[in-house]
Amino acid sequence: MRAADVGDPIMGRLVMQYGAIRAVEAIRARTLPPEFVAQEIKRAQEAHQNRPPDLTARVNAWHARLAAANPAADLENGQGSGARLVIPGSPEWPTQLDQLGAGRPLGLWLHGTADLRFSCLKSVAVVGARAATSYGTHIAAEFGVGLGESGWTVVSGGAHGVDGAAHRGALAADAPTVVVLACGVDICYPASHEVLFAAVRDRGVVVSECPPGVHPTRARFLIRNRLIAALSRGTVVVEAALRSGALNTAAHALSLNRHLAAVPGPVTSGMSAGCHKLLRDRKAVCVTSPEEMIDLVGVIGDDLASQSRAPAVPRDKLNEPTRKVLDAIPTRGGAGPASIAVAAGLSLDATLSALGGLAAAGYIERTTNGWRLRKQLASYPKAPDSAALEPPPSPESDASDDPPFPDDDFPHGPEQHGWH
Amino acid sequence: MRAADVGDPIMGRLVMQYGAIRAVEAIRARTLPPEFVAQEIKRAQEAHQNRPPDLTARVNAWHARLAAANPAADLENGQGSGARLVIPGSPEWPTQLDQLGAGRPLGLWLHGTADLRFSCLKSVAVVGARAATSYGTHIAAEFGVGLGESGWTVVSGGAHGVDGAAHRGALAADAPTVVVLACGVDICYPASHEVLFAAVRDRGVVVSECPPGVHPTRARFLIRNRLIAALSRGTVVVEAALRSGALNTAAHALSLNRHLAAVPGPVTSGMSAGCHKLLRDRKAVCVTSPEEMIDLVGVIGDDLASQSRAPAVPRDKLNEPTRKVLDAIPTRGGAGPASIAVAAGLSLDATLSALGGLAAAGYIERTTNGWRLRKQLASYPKAPDSAALEPPPSPESDASDDPPFPDDDFPHGPEQHGWH
Repeated sequence: MRAADVGDPIMGRLVMQYGAIRAVEAIRARTLPPEFVAQEIKRAQEAHQNRPPDLTARVNAWHARLAAANPAADLENGQGSGARLVIPGSPEWPTQLDQLGAGRPLGLWLHGTADLRFSCLKSVAVVGARAATSYGTHIAAEFGVGLGESGWTVVSGGAHGVDGAAHRGALAADAPTVVVLACGVDICYPASHEVLFAAVRDRGVVVSECPPGVHPTRARFLIRNRLIAALSRGTVVVEAALRSGALNTAAHALSLNRHLAAVPGPVTSGMSAGCHKLLRDRKAVCVTSPEEMIDLVGVIGDDLASQSRAPAVPRDKLNEPTRKVLDAIPTRGGAGPASIAVAAGLSLDATLSALGGLAAAGYIERTTNGWRLRKQLASYPKAPDSAALEPPPSPESDASDDPPFPDDDFPHGPEQHGWH
Repeated sequence: MRAADVGDPIMGRLVMQYGAIRAVEAIRARTLPPEFVAQEIKRAQEAHQNRPPDLTARVNAWHARLAAANPAADLENGQGSGARLVIPGSPEWPTQLDQLGAGRPLGLWLHGTADLRFSCLKSVAVVGARAATSYGTHIAAEFGVGLGESGWTVVSGGAHGVDGAAHRGALAADAPTVVVLACGVDICYPASHEVLFAAVRDRGVVVSECPPGVHPTRARFLIRNRLIAALSRGTVVVEAALRSGALNTAAHALSLNRHLAAVPGPVTSGMSAGCHKLLRDRKAVCVTSPEEMIDLVGVIGDDLASQSRAPAVPRDKLNEPTRKVLDAIPTRGGAGPASIAVAAGLSLDATLSALGGLAAAGYIERTTNGWRLRKQLASYPKAPDSAALEPPPSPESDASDDPPFPDDDFPHGPEQHGWH
């Protein structure tokens, strides 16, 4: 069997129903089991406007290919090159591939030390553009390292750009990684990845459904992509142009109901346009780190990532009246307790006690003109986006989730703020 | 009234129920209408664990502020500075603010030539970090120009960074823009935006609910944000750290059921972390261009943006058997029609006619070793992410939406590919 046949669902169904041997015999005899033909025509009629598939042409095509196929030689070459063949039912067979139904491969050629089934129990497909930018390869390597260090296997296509960077990142974390090729496992494509593939065989495994000696073609790259998606719990697209093979892998992940994630990038980069399209269409979840990807595909309570949180600032620890007083104290000049009480909307007593506390804590200082904020408060870190909320001169200038009006009347919980 | 009062929903409800004059009288007399008090206590008990609000303290606070307030002087200063006051019912009042309910401002001070109500009929709030990166200000300016040129008004806070860049972009497109200040319209904050605000007054309008002479405070910035969200059909966050005032504006947009969008950026930039959080939590839609923002907030059939599409390549125009033949032709050496027919899975006749057409179209050439792809096909543009799918030597190397197996059996429509 050649990959192109495996990709043909009619052939796939024939094999699943009658077994590879009987399927081959049927094709050799240029016949198909009548009940299968009837079923196929019914299926085709349901699927598309009563247009039955030309089964005779298919049989002839398969027959021509069968004539060229030589399974015995394939096995010999494979074993000679150090590869092994696994088929459904083998202990090393990754059963998640069965979800491909008629598209399930008849077998997989493996070359490497790692056990494919075990390696893929916790695996993520990291895919993206071959013509990736330095941003894309940087992020892919970060994901490779992060996933590897957390015990997750990186599955990818071994291509230039994102694929290669992800594999290298995983190897750098001394984690197994899985390369799924569109050619025979004995063929090094791209040729410049000879060293990389050797390292993968050493620590992980190189996979292909093509027998040894088969060279890559457009069809095989597209057929290969379904395996990358089907082997992994989820797929993350690191960089992809609007027209990209990575989006084909993403489509497979969706059709298999696997998790799909995309890494955002600059909107000025065409290489992120495909990722942004997936996000805009809400097909993919936005992930910005390996932890977030593990959070997505991981088991709840087991692999949850910590929420990205805003930095806390000392002000958060103040109680509300004290905060009100602090907000009411001018940054320039100074103000007396009475006017501060008016501005804060508090009684004079409450204001005076708050002033004492704030002075003791070093937030404010007393001058001849009254109270004012202390400048250059070393103990007073600015939040990243301090500026958006406060006049610059104030050291008390972090944005804050203080509601614009009293908490009890805020239209929605803090969750709505987007930083919880 | 000072902004802080306006932000107090109890005050807001008092004014909405009894009118500003009677509300002021009640506060002067340090009393509240009994039925109002009863209703407030009931409301508060429902809202939070039977904890009634301390209305007496509120009345005292309001009374203290009333003593300091001088509406006559405010009006005089305002008119002196060239500003005008609009209140609910005025022809220029933007009725979308009524959706704020008790939080609706009692009035707005306007300074500028544009009509606020008309300008905001088709308006978008462009908000983001004051400490924006050059990426953030670049994108903000692009959105300002793009929205302005399409007849949409940019609403923002007139701050440094994203706000200022968005306003400048709109003015560059000779479009009106609306600056909503957290201080009196006669106060130039930030001071360095004096020229910008002058240009806005000239072509658009500067807005504030604070009377002239009022300086900005933390509370007023947060109260102000609700107006930016409420004036616009939708809000787009261009850049925001995890702790950012822009996220406060975003929360208001959500609570008002207005459209919320976020612009992605490099995941390596903390200034985009807030945007990515909104996308990850699926609170915001991913937008990468002003057109996409207009697509979101616009009227269907009126403002729809063109879908971002993958570039078409000549190959798309070939029929399926011809494509199969083209894919089966080797890039190096050459192949005879018979082996090409086998590889393509077609009859010899079909293959021969396809070969003729491909040769005539200049895709392939006949050599002494048979047919092969023509190298350096000038007429054959590469798609952006060509590499991901095809061996490089092939000029026929764009990724493609050909399904891995025949269309009629592809698990899902082309839509799933993410580039339609």
